[in-house]
Amino acid sequence: MVAMSPLPLPVTGIDAPFLLAARSEPVPYTPVWFMRQAGRSLPEYRAIRAGIPMLEALRRPDLIAEITLQPVRRHGVDAAILFSDIVVPLVAAGVDLDIVAGTGPVVAEPIRTEADLDRLPPLEPDQVDFVATAIRLVRAELGPVPLIGFAGAPFTLASYLIEGGPSRTYAKTKAIMHGEPRLWSALLDRLADIAATFLRVQIEAGVAAVQLFDSWAGALSDADYRRLVLPASAKVLAAATGVPRIHFGVGTGELLPAMAEAGPDVLGVDWRIPLSEAARRVPGMPLQGNLDPAILLAPWPVVQSEVRRVLSDARSLPGHIFNLGHGVLPETDPDVLRRVVELVHEVSAR
Amino acid sequence: MVAMSPLPLPVTGIDAPFLLAARSEPVPYTPVWFMRQAGRSLPEYRAIRAGIPMLEALRRPDLIAEITLQPVRRHGVDAAILFSDIVVPLVAAGVDLDIVAGTGPVVAEPIRTEADLDRLPPLEPDQVDFVATAIRLVRAELGPVPLIGFAGAPFTLASYLIEGGPSRTYAKTKAIMHGEPRLWSALLDRLADIAATFLRVQIEAGVAAVQLFDSWAGALSDADYRRLVLPASAKVLAAATGVPRIHFGVGTGELLPAMAEAGPDVLGVDWRIPLSEAARRVPGMPLQGNLDPAILLAPWPVVQSEVRRVLSDARSLPGHIFNLGHGVLPETDPDVLRRVVELVHEVSAR
Repeated sequence: MVAMSPLPLPVTGIDAPFLLAARSEPVPYTPVWFMRQAGRSLPEYRAIRAGIPMLEALRRPDLIAEITLQPVRRHGVDAAILFSDIVVPLVAAGVDLDIVAGTGPVVAEPIRTEADLDRLPPLEPDQVDFVATAIRLVRAELGPVPLIGFAGAPFTLASYLIEGGPSRTYAKTKAIMHGEPRLWSALLDRLADIAATFLRVQIEAGVAAVQLFDSWAGALSDADYRRLVLPASAKVLAAATGVPRIHFGVGTGELLPAMAEAGPDVLGVDWRIPLSEAARRVPGMPLQGNLDPAILLAPWPVVQSEVRRVLSDARSLPGHIFNLGHGVLPETDPDVLRRVVELVHEVSAR
Repeated sequence: MVAMSPLPLPVTGIDAPFLLAARSEPVPYTPVWFMRQAGRSLPEYRAIRAGIPMLEALRRPDLIAEITLQPVRRHGVDAAILFSDIVVPLVAAGVDLDIVAGTGPVVAEPIRTEADLDRLPPLEPDQVDFVATAIRLVRAELGPVPLIGFAGAPFTLASYLIEGGPSRTYAKTKAIMHGEPRLWSALLDRLADIAATFLRVQIEAGVAAVQLFDSWAGALSDADYRRLVLPASAKVLAAATGVPRIHFGVGTGELLPAMAEAGPDVLGVDWRIPLSEAARRVPGMPLQGNLDPAILLAPWPVVQSEVRRVLSDARSLPGHIFNLGHGVLPETDPDVLRRVVELVHEVSAR
């Protein structure tokens, strides 16, 4: 467990490979981190979470800090990512929702009318003080390893609030997008403000980069994304100044040019699109990705060959941050993650 | 209810717009049908299914025929699609599975070892006689409207058999794909034979076209698809000779060139990729799609403008069959489907 008193902080190393890659500068080796590296794949995570409900763990600075640091200690990744959840700022602002194990966020009263917007007040920075405190605790331990903060993008947050939970079709969300433009734009605007406030709190507390997760934007056509989603995401990214901003969604191959227009510094992509093809669609943009997390369940020779394939496919990129194409699966052997970090460093060393 | 005695059959109109478009020949207007047009969106479907379990309905020729014809009568679509399910040939061959309302196929004992393959015997054509009978009943009523038969592609069927039901990550399936190549290829080979037999029975009974659904192939990288899936799908398509073969999956924008190599005559695509961009990736291939089914829940002016956008985007295609990008959502107003058919015909009339 980390100490609770915020001490004088080491400055994050501006020449950390993760930050160099995000700026398309030369790197000594390809940096690597994993989405959901802090989580259920680690026995020490399962131990520390035992008996503590998710929303409680997400509000305790000591737990946030410890869980954030676990994968850094164990895997030697090139960046930490704050242990949090995209719904944390919604809960902090007063939305009645729970995170149900095996399901995801479940919203008590979904938002489907303009009157329902009253249940989504603005986020005041001090409502997420516990996150700022956790960031200071993490930085005191991390040394020069960059810490990544994050937020959920307006579309993905809206999908949970409207559907009431995870969805396969986003039918209710899309019905409102197309049928109630005033409600849709008011909702996205509120969510953009909340995400922007949440990111600014994290940046002020000392994160070295942020990632905006529009996890489910890949469910949209390019035309719908551009007209009904992009402006709100651009607003969030524009508010998150001073650090590199990564933008990521699952299955967004066709949306990459539009997501680049939203203004990030780095785009994250999944395994559905080869990195070289993604680079062709967004020339000059550093990319993050894109090993299929399910590959990590295969025997080591397969993992090895797939990691090499990703690195080889990334050779033409202006900057490359190695990652998975989505979060670490809970059943992943943590030792495989450690070996992937070593392999990426070894194969890419210049 | 249709008559049960198979009468002399009208020959399917070879100049039906649906078949002309599938052959890239000039059409009087763009043909249109909807995936899952026979199903829960129709009150007459819900009425006829009341109290009858799904697997029972899927085995009764009279019900299959009636449900297949319902959307043709109501919507005036340019093709009927057989009321069936991709798991029907598995159940007929002896696999113990059920279709659970609100969930999908649930397999009693998933296939995860080579010994488990014993639970997946070959399909004998007479085990799906009820489908052949239903096809003859439908054709007796349909007249010149083409009837589409279908089967599930080996990867998608394998994913259900391995996972035991629907999945978001296909983690177990991919672990076997990459970790147990002998089991994987034996499983895909058996499923290819089953799908091929199922399609041949339908073709011999008189369907005018077939669609091979690899619904979840979009979860794969291009490299994995080409090496571990494409050969089995190509085997199925090669066995389904004599009628146009449509090949479809969700979120397959990056896989289109590989899916075209599997040998279909038409590719179905969803709304995630504009038809004009899909056409650029598979030049010369007629395409089917691609309205987002969720659009049909929006007010009519939105539906109208999106239908026009799809038709306009399809102008450069060698052949275009209008469809949704995935199945009709159960909550869809059937009257909207009828109006979409009229609008597609009217706007595209030459």
